[in-house]
Amino acid sequence: RPYCKYSARPSKVERIPFYIEKAVRHSIYGRPGVSYIDLAGDMVTQKVNVANLSPNVKCLDPPKTLADPDKIKEAIDLIHYAEKPLVIVGKGAAYAKAENSVKRFIESTRFPFLPTPMGKGVLPDDHNLCVSPARSKALQEADVILLLGARLNWILHFGLPPRFNPKVKVIQVDICVEEMNNNVQNAVSLVGDMDAVMTQMNDQLDKIPGHFQFNPKSPWWRTLNNKVQQNQKAVQAMMDDKSEPLNYYAAYSEIQKFLPKDCIIVSEGANTMDISRTMVPNYLPRHRLDAGSFGTMGVGLGFAVAAGIWCKDHAPGKRVISIQGDSAFGFSGMEIETICRYKLPVTLMIINNGGIYAGVPEDVWKSLQAEDLTLMSPPTALMAAARYEKMIEAFGGRGFCARKCEEINKYLTEITKDEERVALLNILISPMSSRKTQDFDWLTKSKM
Amino acid sequence: RPYCKYSARPSKVERIPFYIEKAVRHSIYGRPGVSYIDLAGDMVTQKVNVANLSPNVKCLDPPKTLADPDKIKEAIDLIHYAEKPLVIVGKGAAYAKAENSVKRFIESTRFPFLPTPMGKGVLPDDHNLCVSPARSKALQEADVILLLGARLNWILHFGLPPRFNPKVKVIQVDICVEEMNNNVQNAVSLVGDMDAVMTQMNDQLDKIPGHFQFNPKSPWWRTLNNKVQQNQKAVQAMMDDKSEPLNYYAAYSEIQKFLPKDCIIVSEGANTMDISRTMVPNYLPRHRLDAGSFGTMGVGLGFAVAAGIWCKDHAPGKRVISIQGDSAFGFSGMEIETICRYKLPVTLMIINNGGIYAGVPEDVWKSLQAEDLTLMSPPTALMAAARYEKMIEAFGGRGFCARKCEEINKYLTEITKDEERVALLNILISPMSSRKTQDFDWLTKSKM
Amino acid sequence: RPYCKYSARPSKVERIPFYIEKAVRHSIYGRPGVSYIDLAGDMVTQKVNVANLSPNVKCLDPPKTLADPDKIKEAIDLIHYAEKPLVIVGKGAAYAKAENSVKRFIESTRFPFLPTPMGKGVLPDDHNLCVSPARSKALQEADVILLLGARLNWILHFGLPPRFNPKVKVIQVDICVEEMNNNVQNAVSLVGDMDAVMTQMNDQLDKIPGHFQFNPKSPWWRTLNNKVQQNQKAVQAMMDDKSEPLNYYAAYSEIQKFLPKDCIIVSEGANTMDISRTMVPNYLPRHRLDAGSFGTMGVGLGFAVAAGIWCKDHAPGKRVISIQGDSAFGFSGMEIETICRYKLPVTLMIINNGGIYAGVPEDVWKSLQAEDLTLMSPPTALMAAARYEKMIEAFGGRGFCARKCEEINKYLTEITKDEERVALLNILISPMSSRKTQDFDWLTKSKM
Amino acid sequence: RPYCKYSARPSKVERIPFYIEKAVRHSIYGRPGVSYIDLAGDMVTQKVNVANLSPNVKCLDPPKTLADPDKIKEAIDLIHYAEKPLVIVGKGAAYAKAENSVKRFIESTRFPFLPTPMGKGVLPDDHNLCVSPARSKALQEADVILLLGARLNWILHFGLPPRFNPKVKVIQVDICVEEMNNNVQNAVSLVGDMDAVMTQMNDQLDKIPGHFQFNPKSPWWRTLNNKVQQNQKAVQAMMDDKSEPLNYYAAYSEIQKFLPKDCIIVSEGANTMDISRTMVPNYLPRHRLDAGSFGTMGVGLGFAVAAGIWCKDHAPGKRVISIQGDSAFGFSGMEIETICRYKLPVTLMIINNGGIYAGVPEDVWKSLQAEDLTLMSPPTALMAAARYEKMIEAFGGRGFCARKCEEINKYLTEITKDEERVALLNILISPMSSRKTQDFDWLTKSKM
Repeated sequence: RPYCKYSARPSKVERIPFYIEKAVRHSIYGRPGVSYIDLAGDMVTQKVNVANLSPNVKCLDPPKTLADPDKIKEAIDLIHYAEKPLVIVGKGAAYAKAENSVKRFIESTRFPFLPTPMGKGVLPDDHNLCVSPARSKALQEADVILLLGARLNWILHFGLPPRFNPKVKVIQVDICVEEMNNNVQNAVSLVGDMDAVMTQMNDQLDKIPGHFQFNPKSPWWRTLNNKVQQNQKAVQAMMDDKSEPLNYYAAYSEIQKFLPKDCIIVSEGANTMDISRTMVPNYLPRHRLDAGSFGTMGVGLGFAVAAGIWCKDHAPGKRVISIQGDSAFGFSGMEIETICRYKLPVTLMIINNGGIYAGVPEDVWKSLQAEDLTLMSPPTALMAAARYEKMIEAFGGRGFCARKCEEINKYLTEITKDEERVALLNILISPMSSRKTQDFDWLTKSKM
Repeated sequence: RPYCKYSARPSKVERIPFYIEKAVRHSIYGRPGVSYIDLAGDMVTQKVNVANLSPNVKCLDPPKTLADPDKIKEAIDLIHYAEKPLVIVGKGAAYAKAENSVKRFIESTRFPFLPTPMGKGVLPDDHNLCVSPARSKALQEADVILLLGARLNWILHFGLPPRFNPKVKVIQVDICVEEMNNNVQNAVSLVGDMDAVMTQMNDQLDKIPGHFQFNPKSPWWRTLNNKVQQNQKAVQAMMDDKSEPLNYYAAYSEIQKFLPKDCIIVSEGANTMDISRTMVPNYLPRHRLDAGSFGTMGVGLGFAVAAGIWCKDHAPGKRVISIQGDSAFGFSGMEIETICRYKLPVTLMIINNGGIYAGVPEDVWKSLQAEDLTLMSPPTALMAAARYEKMIEAFGGRGFCARKCEEINKYLTEITKDEERVALLNILISPMSSRKTQDFDWLTKSKM
Repeated sequence: RPYCKYSARPSKVERIPFYIEKAVRHSIYGRPGVSYIDLAGDMVTQKVNVANLSPNVKCLDPPKTLADPDKIKEAIDLIHYAEKPLVIVGKGAAYAKAENSVKRFIESTRFPFLPTPMGKGVLPDDHNLCVSPARSKALQEADVILLLGARLNWILHFGLPPRFNPKVKVIQVDICVEEMNNNVQNAVSLVGDMDAVMTQMNDQLDKIPGHFQFNPKSPWWRTLNNKVQQNQKAVQAMMDDKSEPLNYYAAYSEIQKFLPKDCIIVSEGANTMDISRTMVPNYLPRHRLDAGSFGTMGVGLGFAVAAGIWCKDHAPGKRVISIQGDSAFGFSGMEIETICRYKLPVTLMIINNGGIYAGVPEDVWKSLQAEDLTLMSPPTALMAAARYEKMIEAFGGRGFCARKCEEINKYLTEITKDEERVALLNILISPMSSRKTQDFDWLTKSKM
Repeated sequence: RPYCKYSARPSKVERIPFYIEKAVRHSIYGRPGVSYIDLAGDMVTQKVNVANLSPNVKCLDPPKTLADPDKIKEAIDLIHYAEKPLVIVGKGAAYAKAENSVKRFIESTRFPFLPTPMGKGVLPDDHNLCVSPARSKALQEADVILLLGARLNWILHFGLPPRFNPKVKVIQVDICVEEMNNNVQNAVSLVGDMDAVMTQMNDQLDKIPGHFQFNPKSPWWRTLNNKVQQNQKAVQAMMDDKSEPLNYYAAYSEIQKFLPKDCIIVSEGANTMDISRTMVPNYLPRHRLDAGSFGTMGVGLGFAVAAGIWCKDHAPGKRVISIQGDSAFGFSGMEIETICRYKLPVTLMIINNGGIYAGVPEDVWKSLQAEDLTLMSPPTALMAAARYEKMIEAFGGRGFCARKCEEINKYLTEITKDEERVALLNILISPMSSRKTQDFDWLTKSKM
């Protein structure tokens, strides 16, 4: 959010703490976000009379808000009669630290749920009520959606047909009132702190005589379970295809085995990030750093540095696993110097397909030398088979390059044994590899 | 709030309703404010396929939020033991239409209250618990302040000494969480819809065994009542001084007699506006349009036009009374054409002191001709004795010029009799006239 | 031109003179324009040590530049063989004070010339080589155009067909190199100070053996003269139509008689300004203030105040004649207070057609009362027959209202006799009146 | 220069060529600079009717301007009587391709000259009239300065005492009139194309009877020559100090031997760039890319890529030599992938002092291990002894690391032999090394 109205006046350098508190406050109260403070250059070298500084420099904890109790009742009434309910767990639920109340709600109702990319881990991805593998089907047919801290933006297809049921009733829970009814008008709008509101919901549920629980044998659950199995089978087939050059799913199937359940995942790239959302599970909230709503590229290593410093200071033993496409890595690859210099607990992996979006046919590719590839490549193609693992040697780290599942296994075993030195695993996969066939094109056209 | 991220794409002229709804939503949800929509010039003449327009164009009513019930209890505990309580009623209480719950709270607690300029009328100014005449004293000594939809900005002296008790405990009620703890850290922060939160407060009060009520014979009430009487006496003396040229208070004492209780007051100018805050009472909420937090000049006649159109359409019989200084009138005086053209129910008054901020001594002034005055005047002096009432004749309105109380009385009587034609009363007062002596200089220096 | 990079640092109030000089310099060197200086609020009350102020506060005169002599030769060669030459005299020629060298060039070549609105007066409008009445024809057929300090923007139809000959060769003279070749690529670009470059042109002409002069009996001059006469006849017919309510041309024909040859014309409005460009002649350069390239409305009275102050201080006896449409007057009509207060040598005229752009048929109009008109008028219609002349009485000025030519004559005679008191003449004309039929619609569509 | 007023309208995708031409024009006419074009996202995929595109898409060559001939005479008069003349050759002389006329002027007058960083090469740095080694002295004592396309900004100490003679007379030659008289008021301002103006100057010089030439035995030349020798001796001592870890001057003395006279130098970093300005000579104009007026960091490798592509396309055989500090390299080091992918003719050198601005004493440093250094280093310290040369191996380039002069020699010999593969030489120098002692502190305080 723009912050210019608080630009500090340089003649009043002693007011800096006032602005710092204000900036922190604006970043953590209400919808969390970034504050920007612009200090005039000549303030940097000015002297301060400490006695003039205000002692109230620490920003107080954010006050909580609750939703309208009448609307809570309406929401509970609505879900009571839902035939195809769905809970979407967004990053707002994670930011609000609402995992306990959200879990209690989902488990007591036995509603199917879908996490958004940054909402992953509020409930573990392997939860038996998670229907991520049936995402398209779930979105398309749900008749009542409980939208928890997520926005109906392009990532959720604007909440519109053909990706959503045109008659879907939405119950939106969010801390930001201005987001209510955006793109789709809600059946019920619940504004407030996610944990407080979900506790209101749970308390209201408890008042219902007899225990309300959605039938696990309902047609809806049957539909979803079928779709889950069908998609898992398709994915399993790709995971099992170990032919070289590797495909994404085969590579991820090997990587999965080496991910600590409590690690922080940094994920960046086009296919690399998209596929990791299904292939790299989260078990804890706030343990995934992902491109977010604007799909910004180039932030992955900054995320890894920040997460690594946080782990080092606040969660010794916890590791950051950064998985990037080679194009993503190229935006800010130099930051591995920072990671090595501060010995941050970060493991770097590059899923390297030569940066190619639209390439040559697979059989031609296999017969080509690296040089040929470069010559016939589009400008979006990077150097074929760049050996990024050599870069980290410049800074005392360890570099590995894998082309087969066994090599991935071997090098991750080696990396895991000695975590003192930062390691980078460069996994060369096929430039032809892509996501499994999708039911809808990307950004399926809709009225929005 | 900046709105650029919603700038409509001109190739999608059919999405205009989407942006209109979004703009309206952002202007009425949460803290109310202005939305700005920028339409590309070539959209204005584009054709639209009506079938492509979304039917959901009407913005839904804003959802309500409540405060944390635990904090409500803390707030009630705190006021229970206050020795010098004070309620400040801000414009947030008016915008939230919380007059009933606020009134119930104040009357049941018998706390003294102070309205801010735009908060005037949430409770009537002549309420026996209103301590506006003792404003400085009340702010300076209160030990617990309940701040209802007001901000501790420059208008409230940033909530800091010497204008406030350094140990004051603030209970802030506001819909905007980012405003909490600004300048002063609150004892209790209650975020939510003002009416919902004050209802929570009232309900909590009702749970207190025995009826809680602040003692009308307490030293605090005695102090305030003394100060009220003392200030009212000083004001009464100025009101009674009918010598010519008139002073502000004498002029206002006459005007008061002609103000319908349900009229909408538009007030603009330096002294004219400041003094009108004490001399022009409000009895209804949302019936005063005043310069607001940024002290913007030039908005008065725009306010009058807008309020006049609203009255004409929604409240037949209700009148707008616009009282401006002559300098304020000069910013946009041409708008009287609009008022006359649409026959808006607006009565215009100009308190005309020749725009002079720093003028000549009074005895010299009296002996001077208009021309001399102009020659010796600072650039902030306008034409002495400009006869603004003649302007309105250009547009078919009626103009009057008064220099004495009897003339004010006579012309307002005449104006009131025939309200079909717009009237402008130009009241020539003394360029020497000013506010009564204040306990503090304007913008008294503090650490902020 | 944006000026933010020079925003003064408030801790260095003593550098203000540095920024003032820089701002003045940027406003008068090269292409003249506005500079904007933003002073931080707290600088206003800071103390200055005069000894620290730089003594070099006065901006030096602008250096001059000349055009490439080889290009001068090319230009002279080109005009030598032109069959349908045309000189367009823009405001750049006026700003550069190049009237003598431009006049010498035009008179020695005997080329037809057209002034732009702000270029009027560089040569007098009644000059026998001026072809303003044949503007469209001249632009459309010219084969070589000498463009002197004017831009091929929308006012000059972007220099493109159908308004211009597609094969026209342009010789552009301008101080601003970035403007060269804009919209149309020049045959010759001459960058430099207009007076210096036109002197180069004249000197080069003098070197041609035998006197070069374009033949006054050429087909081109015949074509233009015919068109001039034809258009003058059409205008004359409208001027002679004294029926009431008056049309624009009849009103202007009467006004013309009262314009001092050396007066400064301020002209604003839609039709009022457009028609004044043909009906209100200029005889001196820099004596016309007009809306300019962006067609900004609301600036007329500001122009009149500024020009009036300049006359008062620098050209005693010279008068400002401000002619505005009533809609234009309405933007800032209150400024007549300033004009009266400072007794500026300004005469105000309003050509008042009730602000109506698209109104009712003339016969209906004639039968209507003012009130009826208001009711049936579009929002762009102002109050019919507003009597603006009454406004000025508020400030001690004299107001007159004319509906016939004889009244215009009578009141302007009266106004002219006593110029001590500011006068405003409100001329009520027909809302039906408009420009004479044009060969092209406004903003004729072209590829641009 | 801001370019928003030309933002292309997305509904008119066919006008893109119009804006491209305008952008190119604004970037090369007058003072050269950057143009910015913002294309709306939906233009990217729109279809264009080629028939609608304007054929005039190529921007014409910039027109030239000349200075006022009278001012040329004044300038020549002034230099005639100068006792301590100085020519400052700025980047404006390079941009204007004025090397021939500038050289002719300097060599015929025998005036001492100083290039600015980007003005280096207009005349070769080893020219016998170049007094770069006596820069401070020359600036401080000169009585007449001919300022050719340079600005008196912070790089030239604002032209003010104590760095300049308070009585210095400045003759400024520049294409940008607004820059005239900035900070210092000129004795003579000559605005125009540098080559055209210097040709005017030379022609005027030729008219002086007898050949004007400044005396090579004058006290001024004696003073300057003494200072040149003194400073060259100090530098030579540092060049001769081959002790390890190396200092900057020793490293540069070895590098010098391998620089082709016609190479393009890219130079970036703090000390690395500053010292390269004296230690890396230029012999050709427009062959040096340097941080420029704003001291922007992070541009070096972008410069190298751009210059490399230019050489490949337009100057086969010419090489780009990029010399960066390790901190500078770190901003965009990943771009070596681009350089390798396109096999650009770029040789990369890093003068690597561990990014340390304020480090530990030299004897302590020598006894420390890399790890210790990191622990005790300030945040501005990078990883000590980072082996950047390993990075380039990732992309098929050749990497070398040198710690001694012999190693620099050996590896540059090797690199020079085989220029097909991109090479990077990482030169580890002492973190203690810095510039030779300066007569003035950096940004010596002055009234500006």
